[in-house]
Amino acid sequence: MPPAPPKLLVFDIFGTVVDWHGSIVREMRRLHPQVDADAFALAWREGYRPAMQRVMSGELGWTRIDELHRMILDEMLPRFALAHLDEAQRHHLNRVWHRLAPWPDAVEGVTRLKTRFLVSTLSNGNTGMLTRMAKRAGLPWDCILSAELFRAYKPDPAVYLGAARVFDLAPEEVMMVAAHHDDLAAARGCGLQTAYIERPLEFGPAHPKDVSPDRAHTWHARSITHLADQLEACL
Amino acid sequence: MPPAPPKLLVFDIFGTVVDWHGSIVREMRRLHPQVDADAFALAWREGYRPAMQRVMSGELGWTRIDELHRMILDEMLPRFALAHLDEAQRHHLNRVWHRLAPWPDAVEGVTRLKTRFLVSTLSNGNTGMLTRMAKRAGLPWDCILSAELFRAYKPDPAVYLGAARVFDLAPEEVMMVAAHHDDLAAARGCGLQTAYIERPLEFGPAHPKDVSPDRAHTWHARSITHLADQLEACL
Repeated sequence: MPPAPPKLLVFDIFGTVVDWHGSIVREMRRLHPQVDADAFALAWREGYRPAMQRVMSGELGWTRIDELHRMILDEMLPRFALAHLDEAQRHHLNRVWHRLAPWPDAVEGVTRLKTRFLVSTLSNGNTGMLTRMAKRAGLPWDCILSAELFRAYKPDPAVYLGAARVFDLAPEEVMMVAAHHDDLAAARGCGLQTAYIERPLEFGPAHPKDVSPDRAHTWHARSITHLADQLEACL
Repeated sequence: MPPAPPKLLVFDIFGTVVDWHGSIVREMRRLHPQVDADAFALAWREGYRPAMQRVMSGELGWTRIDELHRMILDEMLPRFALAHLDEAQRHHLNRVWHRLAPWPDAVEGVTRLKTRFLVSTLSNGNTGMLTRMAKRAGLPWDCILSAELFRAYKPDPAVYLGAARVFDLAPEEVMMVAAHHDDLAAARGCGLQTAYIERPLEFGPAHPKDVSPDRAHTWHARSITHLADQLEACL
């Protein structure tokens, strides 16, 4: 039997709500068609965890994802024969992370869940990035919660427990929604409910992801609308 | 000639977007009809600045408005012959600040402005309070910015400059919207544009407020819809 319904649903964003790989590939094919867009998107994303780790280890002071993305970009451009890009071009390209497109079910799913629960982002992305992305995509969040508020990056417990604290809720009244087992495992370690969303094409059609269910999660859904179906059926 | 249009409009909330006096009076008349609801609302609000000052002076560590409201409430209840209220009653009453009703023009005004600008709260209220208030009222903010993110209360410059920084904007690309000259003066001191909203009944019909124009503000409006009228005419 599932636990009591949550009051707040917090969503991972990159890969769970928006399609970072497809969005970056589309922009790269348009802006720089000579580059291997798939490899470019994967390389950029691969730099993300090590960069956050440098912040969480204290090697870097608090640094927003916008700045981390730019550091990674500047470092990788020569490998893709794009070292000639000027400051304006680099700035524009870095902002692609503000322009990520939602998965086809995301706007409808969040909109439906919003009628019954508080719905918020809970992302390592910074507040301005998440806000601009949501406005462009039409994602109707009640609140934009970012690692920026807690000055810690997921999977640090401060982020999950901080989200519960912001709303004066017990951890079990909060549900983390993500397409990543490690994010959900960390949330579960803090006492949150968890919902896994299948995103088999997160890394692009050439790199399908195993989306087998893990029984440790409270819910398993094919999409955010499918999660809404399941939660609506229980209320 | 007015300056270039802003990109982000940040709104003071208490008194500017929501009617704290009227909302508290209505709840008190229903819950505790023997109390002078007007005096009660004014006394509660009067405790607010000194309480924030205790935080900003360092006498208190960082404390959210929810907790400051509760400290003020506990202190004032005996004066209103309500010392007998139990913990659940005090908690419920304190949450009246999450249930404040919008002024009649607020939802339409913010909704219209949202089509042309980023719109956010910029309030000393905490994130959870502002989110629940917005959801209940139907205020469609793009983002909930609170003093909580900056760990400083307005009129500290860290709050106004922090809002610009969150969105990577220059101060003059941000407009502070408020019904209070001191809030706007502090915002202007940081380089923000300013819009004054007339709220002659902020303190209730028995205590009308002078809402004469101050030419130092970029804009002066009778309501948020009137501000939308003026900004739309310039774009």
